[in-house]
Amino acid sequence: MSNGRISATHGQRPVFDNADALDPALRRAMDRYERALMADDKAAMSALFADDPEDVPVVRSDGSGMLVSHNAITVFRARRGGAPSRTLRRRVTRQLDENNAVTVSEFDKTAGGQVIQTQVWTRLREAGDTEPCWKIVAAHLTYPSPAIDRRIWRVVGAPLVSASKPGPLSGMTVAIKDLYAVAGQRIGAGNPDFLAGAPVCERNADAVELLLDAGADLLGIAQTDEFAYSLAGANVHYGTPPNPKAPAHVSGGSSSGPASAVALGQATIGLGTDTAGSIRIPSSYQGLWGIRTTHGRISRNGIHPLSDSFDTVGWMTRDAQTLGFVAKALMPEREPVDAIKELAVCPALDEAAEPDVRAAFAAFRDAVAQDGTGAAEFTMAMLDEMLSIFQTVRGFEAWRADGAWVQDHWDSLAPEIAGRFRHDRTISEEAYRRGLERLASARTLVRGLIGERALLIPSASSVAPLLVNDGDVEQVERARAQTLRLTGIAGIGGLPAVNIPLQTADGLPCGACLIGPAGSDRALIELAKDLYRRSTR
Amino acid sequence: MSNGRISATHGQRPVFDNADALDPALRRAMDRYERALMADDKAAMSALFADDPEDVPVVRSDGSGMLVSHNAITVFRARRGGAPSRTLRRRVTRQLDENNAVTVSEFDKTAGGQVIQTQVWTRLREAGDTEPCWKIVAAHLTYPSPAIDRRIWRVVGAPLVSASKPGPLSGMTVAIKDLYAVAGQRIGAGNPDFLAGAPVCERNADAVELLLDAGADLLGIAQTDEFAYSLAGANVHYGTPPNPKAPAHVSGGSSSGPASAVALGQATIGLGTDTAGSIRIPSSYQGLWGIRTTHGRISRNGIHPLSDSFDTVGWMTRDAQTLGFVAKALMPEREPVDAIKELAVCPALDEAAEPDVRAAFAAFRDAVAQDGTGAAEFTMAMLDEMLSIFQTVRGFEAWRADGAWVQDHWDSLAPEIAGRFRHDRTISEEAYRRGLERLASARTLVRGLIGERALLIPSASSVAPLLVNDGDVEQVERARAQTLRLTGIAGIGGLPAVNIPLQTADGLPCGACLIGPAGSDRALIELAKDLYRRSTR
Repeated sequence: MSNGRISATHGQRPVFDNADALDPALRRAMDRYERALMADDKAAMSALFADDPEDVPVVRSDGSGMLVSHNAITVFRARRGGAPSRTLRRRVTRQLDENNAVTVSEFDKTAGGQVIQTQVWTRLREAGDTEPCWKIVAAHLTYPSPAIDRRIWRVVGAPLVSASKPGPLSGMTVAIKDLYAVAGQRIGAGNPDFLAGAPVCERNADAVELLLDAGADLLGIAQTDEFAYSLAGANVHYGTPPNPKAPAHVSGGSSSGPASAVALGQATIGLGTDTAGSIRIPSSYQGLWGIRTTHGRISRNGIHPLSDSFDTVGWMTRDAQTLGFVAKALMPEREPVDAIKELAVCPALDEAAEPDVRAAFAAFRDAVAQDGTGAAEFTMAMLDEMLSIFQTVRGFEAWRADGAWVQDHWDSLAPEIAGRFRHDRTISEEAYRRGLERLASARTLVRGLIGERALLIPSASSVAPLLVNDGDVEQVERARAQTLRLTGIAGIGGLPAVNIPLQTADGLPCGACLIGPAGSDRALIELAKDLYRRSTR
Repeated sequence: MSNGRISATHGQRPVFDNADALDPALRRAMDRYERALMADDKAAMSALFADDPEDVPVVRSDGSGMLVSHNAITVFRARRGGAPSRTLRRRVTRQLDENNAVTVSEFDKTAGGQVIQTQVWTRLREAGDTEPCWKIVAAHLTYPSPAIDRRIWRVVGAPLVSASKPGPLSGMTVAIKDLYAVAGQRIGAGNPDFLAGAPVCERNADAVELLLDAGADLLGIAQTDEFAYSLAGANVHYGTPPNPKAPAHVSGGSSSGPASAVALGQATIGLGTDTAGSIRIPSSYQGLWGIRTTHGRISRNGIHPLSDSFDTVGWMTRDAQTLGFVAKALMPEREPVDAIKELAVCPALDEAAEPDVRAAFAAFRDAVAQDGTGAAEFTMAMLDEMLSIFQTVRGFEAWRADGAWVQDHWDSLAPEIAGRFRHDRTISEEAYRRGLERLASARTLVRGLIGERALLIPSASSVAPLLVNDGDVEQVERARAQTLRLTGIAGIGGLPAVNIPLQTADGLPCGACLIGPAGSDRALIELAKDLYRRSTR
């Protein structure tokens, strides 16, 4: 800090600039912007941002990503409801030449912490300007972080529970879905009122215990859709966790918190559950590897249930190798040699996917299909029938699991979750009994069609839908219904399924789902790794 | 995103630039920088950063603040040991004119999450260049946040414990020092091995219970210097919490985590303890309001002790009003009217402070002193005597509190903390008994000299010392010894003391300490508020 001249325009705090060169009009524009920001004068701010000159969009960036175009920035500004109050502490301004400048500022945020801001200013004459005016063409903000991101985590420690001993997962951290018991903690199931009334757990869920024994640290307890009863990842009480690979899009759920924690690099392993896609959907939406295991293979002891006939343990990681390490820790027993004999595909189901996902999936399928690749005879009509069975059985069991609490707490639930439970309590014992019979037949059918093969289908029908404010509600509902058809095959079959992360032409995450025979979980991960390698060759 | 041309140079991901205008040499320089970064080729990176041209320093910013000057950036780069691996996802590059450009990029970090980067490039001919070359004059990076900042927090929830009922502190969050009991949690006292062996607490500490009853949420348990036995805020196990008002400087301690949590805006209230300055020092170093209360006034039930003769409850806030709200919740009983009769000063103690702090403190004192302001006859020699008493009594009691654990865990402690305990265990019962007698006399002396007045002195002898790597060790030690002399007056006297945040001419936090008669805590806060208001008029 030996060079740079210090001017006293901002009290005693150092301001570095080439003051001789600094255009007074630039200084006025900078001051005007700061006043407009503090007054939340959106029109003035918008006027001080350039209008995507020279065919290159204007950019505003912060930790959640880039807003690219004048219009995107205006929309963001309209929604945020004002910027936090702040005071300039230090500033470096460089006038690059007559028409360009960059200014970097450190502000004390009134509510604590500091805000760092870079702005690039250009002198432009745009439509409506009578003379060239200083405008912002790029702005970059860094805000202080909260102690905890409540959208992702309910409780987090340094770590929350240390590994019981060194092991193959040493150095890895786990985010567990808030349905798993942890000794000394309560289960919140995504609802603060449920949490407040929950007993303190005396022991860890079996799966948690196995991970701690394998050397992993339990970093914390991550959020879930309320009672795991959604696939979007939205939670009215805590917010929707961020999706770093697709910033304006939902996270996917219901293992939403563990998925985002892993995608953000906050945890190595996201331990969740999958009933109707709650591992595969967030994996697909966020570019993660994920597995739902064979129904009943891993103990569900210590997990708050949604639906006993379908609930199964699953987890997500950023790479396939780690997915396999966890599989070995949670399913140490040997699998039959040649558990999976060949790959099967089913192009008839492609219509369940949107064009962008269909294209990405088809390209992957084409890259990995070989001479031995067979066909599995699923039809869209079968999927409709399976969805109907699923909804009856899952619905009855969900009410059995949560109805006693729900009927005293209707107001505590998000409307759409309450709506599902309201429907579920009308399902009769008789309808459930028949549903179980239909489930048994359908399970036999699914297992017969797949046989000793691994079936490759799209994981979800679409990329992650846009966040509610931006989204087309009809499109979201259509995507959800189609996705449930696709995820239902493994759900009804009680079969393991791995998400292999893919990307659409727009660079958004989607996924291929590899469904294997019952008990082939670890072989399935190896096959998925192999296919992925083959696709990138 | 309707405008902007998309080029395919980075796979299928969108890159926006005015490609016709983009100087190929600029593109090569950008690529060269990215390769140098990934290879951690420091010389190449340094060469691509301009050398503070035109007397304005080059700047590199991230969430911890600005690095101002080419040299500061080089020093940072030498220390960090490489940048995290990343892949470009999206980029907007604008060539502003022939010699200037800005590029904003979104990267997928290989270890999860995204990195946002803004770079401003200028074409310059600097010493050693045979022709003008593209150089970076400003860079701004935003990295993904960790799930928990272990330097600040040991465990944090959403919240960790909710308020028992609505009250005057509703909507406020508390960071408590890891010495306080929380039902269902262990006390860690800043040492992971101590934590691992600690029993689970059955009930909340009394002070925690009072805050929950007053409507505050307990956000989490924050870090402390090991066994609260330091004033710097460094912790070898968890790191030094950040100081947002003085980024390259220590946080101060031992209530280090709660202080940083409040300074960063993560929590409203930082609940700590003060034995030798552990509230006043971090308050002074981080620009916070803080109070250590009259010794024995607030129950210490449920607090892991350091030294019974001196330990007292205290807290920190960003504003004086909140400091007072908490005081009312923790000390609801009435105080005598006119508990404080007048203000007293003691210029003889000014020499304990470094010149920058002395100047800021003197300016404040001059602004608030009135006709009624008297003098208190403390001398530096008295402070030396008090420090010696303090060290004997505190040392014996610290060993009594922690010796049983420490003697089985020497290797688990930081060397300087172990060194203090090694000295403490040599203090004889007889020396302690004499120490207590000397303490009683000294307490009488201090209380007599202050009488029914409030004494205004500097809170700490210096601003927060620079972090160890940068620091001048001798200066740190001198600062610590002088600071202990100043903080010892309230410690020996068992008196309440409030830190009023001030600022040096360089804009760094320091503080004025207002010490009141025993039991005048709430009146003292009101007086401090009044003085602060008077100083800003």
